[in-house]
This record gives sequence, C-alpha cells and structure tokens, in this order.
Amino acid sequence: MSDLPKSVKILEAGPREGFQIEPGPIATQDKVRFIEALAETGLKEIECVSFVNPKKVPSMADAADVAAMIRRKAGVKYIGLWLNLRGLDRAAAAGMDLKGRLASSTSPTFSLKNSGADLEREIERQREWVRRYQELGVEGLRLSVMTAFGCNMEGDIETRRVVEVIERSFAAIREEGAEPTGVSLADTVGWASPAAVERVVGAVRERWPDLSIKLHLHDTRGTGLANAYAGLRLGVYEFDSSCGGLGGCPFAGHKGAAGNICTEDLVFMCEEMGIDTGIDLDALIECARMVEDIVGHPVPGKVMRGGTLAATRARAA
Amino acid sequence: MSDLPKSVKILEAGPREGFQIEPGPIATQDKVRFIEALAETGLKEIECVSFVNPKKVPSMADAADVAAMIRRKAGVKYIGLWLNLRGLDRAAAAGMDLKGRLASSTSPTFSLKNSGADLEREIERQREWVRRYQELGVEGLRLSVMTAFGCNMEGDIETRRVVEVIERSFAAIREEGAEPTGVSLADTVGWASPAAVERVVGAVRERWPDLSIKLHLHDTRGTGLANAYAGLRLGVYEFDSSCGGLGGCPFAGHKGAAGNICTEDLVFMCEEMGIDTGIDLDALIECARMVEDIVGHPVPGKVMRGGTLAATRARAA
Repeated sequence: MSDLPKSVKILEAGPREGFQIEPGPIATQDKVRFIEALAETGLKEIECVSFVNPKKVPSMADAADVAAMIRRKAGVKYIGLWLNLRGLDRAAAAGMDLKGRLASSTSPTFSLKNSGADLEREIERQREWVRRYQELGVEGLRLSVMTAFGCNMEGDIETRRVVEVIERSFAAIREEGAEPTGVSLADTVGWASPAAVERVVGAVRERWPDLSIKLHLHDTRGTGLANAYAGLRLGVYEFDSSCGGLGGCPFAGHKGAAGNICTEDLVFMCEEMGIDTGIDLDALIECARMVEDIVGHPVPGKVMRGGTLAATRARAA
Repeated sequence: MSDLPKSVKILEAGPREGFQIEPGPIATQDKVRFIEALAETGLKEIECVSFVNPKKVPSMADAADVAAMIRRKAGVKYIGLWLNLRGLDRAAAAGMDLKGRLASSTSPTFSLKNSGADLEREIERQREWVRRYQELGVEGLRLSVMTAFGCNMEGDIETRRVVEVIERSFAAIREEGAEPTGVSLADTVGWASPAAVERVVGAVRERWPDLSIKLHLHDTRGTGLANAYAGLRLGVYEFDSSCGGLGGCPFAGHKGAAGNICTEDLVFMCEEMGIDTGIDLDALIECARMVEDIVGHPVPGKVMRGGTLAATRARAA
C-alpha cells in the first residue's frame, strides 16, 4: 500500500522559471496577464519573478513593474525569487509575499557556479538570510536543496550527502534562534528517477519524520511525472511545477530540453488518482494555451493537447 | 517494497504506430532505414508495418515493400500488425515474424468503430485467428485488451469488465484447443493513471497469478512514464513503446496529442533504476534524431534533448 496524500499544494513557477529562460523578450503586460489568469484557476502560490541582477538576467529586469501591475486576488500568494539580500529587499519593497526560503547545494562546484559561494559562504549566507527574515517577520523557513539527485558537474550525489547538507544548514539556522519548517528537494538539472526519489525522500523522512518535504522536479529526461508519482506514493504533497511545462534547462546537454514538470499534467494525474488539487483543470489548460501564444512556440504540456476526460465522461454518462 | 523487475522487454512500435499516423507520405526507404537502425540498438522486437486496407490507411500501402527491403539482423523479430485474416496472410507472405496476437475490447462501441465487430463477432474472430495461428504453427497467444483503462465513447471502464473480457476470450481460446500465454493491457486512448494501472494490473494478477502481463501505454495526457513506473513496481516487465515518442492519438480531443510512451525515455528511466533493457541508449537517441529528420517535425521525446547522464558521469568520475 502507498501513502498517497488526500490533497496536494502546488506552487506555480511558470512565470518565473519559464519567462526567465525565454530567448525573446516577453512584454511586461503579457507576464501580468498570464499571472492574473493563473490566479483564477485555484492556484494559491505563484512564483512571478526573480529579483536578480538585470544585467545577468535581462528577462527579469521588469520584476518590480510586474509586481506593481498585478491585480492581486485575495488568498493567492505572489512570490518572487532572490539569490541575495539585495534581491530579498527588492522583493519586499515590491510588495511580494515573502516566503522564508534558504538555498543550499549538495554540489560545491554547482554552488560556486550558480551563486559564487563555497560551502562556508553558503552557510554564512543562510545565517544572514535567517536574520533578515526575522527582521522582516517572515514566517516559515524552507531549505531548498539544489541538485539533490545529481549534478552535471559532480555526477551522482550520495543520499548521505543530502542528509548531511540539511543537517549542517539546520544547525546553523537553529544557532540563529530560528526553526526550519521544511525542505525542498530540487532535481535542478533533471537527474532524478523514481527510484532516486524514493531513496532520497526516504532518507530525509527517516532522519526527520515530521519535516515537510517538497519536490521541485524537472522533466529534462521525461521522468518528471513518474518522479512526482514516486513522491506522492511516499506521502509528499507539495510540488513546484510550471504551466504548460514552460521553461527549459540551461544546464542540459542540448538546447530545447524540457523544464519543470507541467502543472496541468500534474493536476490531471493527481485528480485522476483522487488527490484533490483545488485547481480548475480546464481553466489551467486555457492558461497553458495563453502562454503558448505569449512565448510564440509550442510548450511541452500534454493534457492541453490530449484534452481532459471530463467532457467525455459527461457524454458517456 | 516494490517488485521492480531485473530486466524489461521492449517492443518498438514507432515504425508502425508512428508512420501510420503521419500526415505526409514517408518514403519506403526511410522507413527501412529507420527500422534497420533500430535493430542495431539492441531492440529485439520491432513492429514495422500494418497489413491493413491501403485505401483506409494509405501510409501503410507499402507494407510488403518495407518487409521485403529490410536487411534482417539475426535475433531481431520484425513484426507486422493485422486486423483480419487477410492481413495476417499478407504478413505471413511478406515473411514477417508472426506473433500470436488476439484482439479484444472492453468497449463494444469502440470495438464496433475500430474493427466493425460486436462482442459475438469479436469472439468468433478470435477463434478464427487461433485456428489460423495453429495452421501457421505460430507459438504463443497474447490477448490485447484495447481500452483497458477507459474509452472515449464509454468513459471509465470498470476493472471487473477487464477481467470478464479476458475470461471470455480465454474460454474461447481453450475451446479451440489452444492455451493463452499472456495479455497486453492497452491504454488505447490515454485514460490511464498510475492508480488505474495498479488497480487493473492488480486485478488481472490476482485472477491469473502466473500470466504474463504487458502494458501498451500512450502518453496522451502526460502520465505515460508514471503509468509505466506503476507497472514496473508491480513486476510488469513487458512494454510497447515508440522511438522519439513518435505517433499520436487519432482519438484524442485535440490534434497534436502525444502517442505511445517514448522508448528512449523509458529505457533511460529503467536503466537509472538498475533495470536492464539490453538497449544502447545513445544509439537509440540517434534513431530518434533520425526519425525526427524523416518526419520533418519535432517528436516529443525528452532524453534526446536533455542528453544522457553517461558522459557527465564519466567526466565527473
């Protein structure tokens, strides 16, 4: 028997992960239009923008404008991503909903490349972020473990190392007088298989039985939803995903590699298994069509083309 | 704990399922070139063509030519599909490797539409095929259960009905003095979820504990590999799939819906979980690139774009 959850919480990451990687410019008003449509589907958390260096990521230069233009819907959290305190302060100034996110990596080489930090610096930064979160009154502290399943620079990651990385960070967080409330295991570069998800989630669950575990999965090699199913079977009920499967993988070997797992395909799979998502699948599919139109090229989502089963069921009944 | 198999057997269906549905004509020599390349990857069974009415399926009008032109590799089975005795005789005449396949459907409406047979006629046809297989000395009798997970015309299919359909056909087969050796549960129109796979495979396994169960899965709504993983967990070790994810679904609500699960993505997932496929993944990816070139449009395979992990592992080691 499995521990399938009764319901799942999905963070929609398409506007941030997807638009960030698009080669062409996306109009600010199109970003806003997409985010507003997503908020009407029942999604409760939408990662809208990154507050990062606009010289390095020009597609996110309008982050504050996007944040200012969104007509907010009550009950929906509009989230930004940051990689340093300056980004966090910009997100706060832009009126984003702040989540207490901390970043760590199982791979020193990836970490150096992605954020210029060695392990000592990574821990030091976590402490700085915790202190700033405390000043800002941010509730909850979730540790994102990047490359939790493998790394293009270091190869396979031992499960033991994932547990060690979390232990080290949790110790630092507690020394700052704060309490970690969850982890997010990220398959940053698409190395996970269902067996790897079982192994890593199992090890983290064994070490911290009551810790909230979220999965951030990429579909780089086609196993994304199988990996999600492996997580669901272990009772994982928090996922990041991307409408239309928008996005890609800047670290993959070949251009055109798939990005995050696709939100509406994940919603379809969950609902078909009796797991409540709180999301209107038809409305979400309309969002996927909208974003395909906005980016001007096909996105990899499947159920947007296969169609839902609701109409067929109604006809057959 | 799960019953993951040590190895899997994969039937490559791309040349038949894929080319059959392509809107434009595919040159006979391109079909042959693709089939010959597939045979070099370690695949042991390749479904090459359909022996069907060329007026109804013009893309398969050259089936006998394809069969005649293939330079056969020892140890590889080159298979054709047929929907009636005339097709079977054409396949035999073309020198295809014959497999004892019988077709049944859980859905009378689908069956009538797909092959013009009601249930009585379906059973009668199974008897005719069994007799012809006996005359031809064909070994093995696998019953394909179409729409085993749901049907666009009848909606959800009760698990009980799948078992009943198999029972009825097996009785008829035995009355002809033959013994069924397996079933193939086909998600013909992409209704399956991992939970449905567990339910249906579980029910068939419970009724016939020693029967070989194959899964024929489509990725119409993105859950294809998750469904395959659900099957693997229950010890299923036989799958049909399609190189590059070639193919589509003529019955889906929207044009452009995905076809069979993608062979190289399935191979990647299995190998990453320690399940032997006997297939050279890099060679298979080259086949996927070849067929993308042949059909002239992107195919949905993921690992062909994401890249395998072998090179990265070697570099990291």
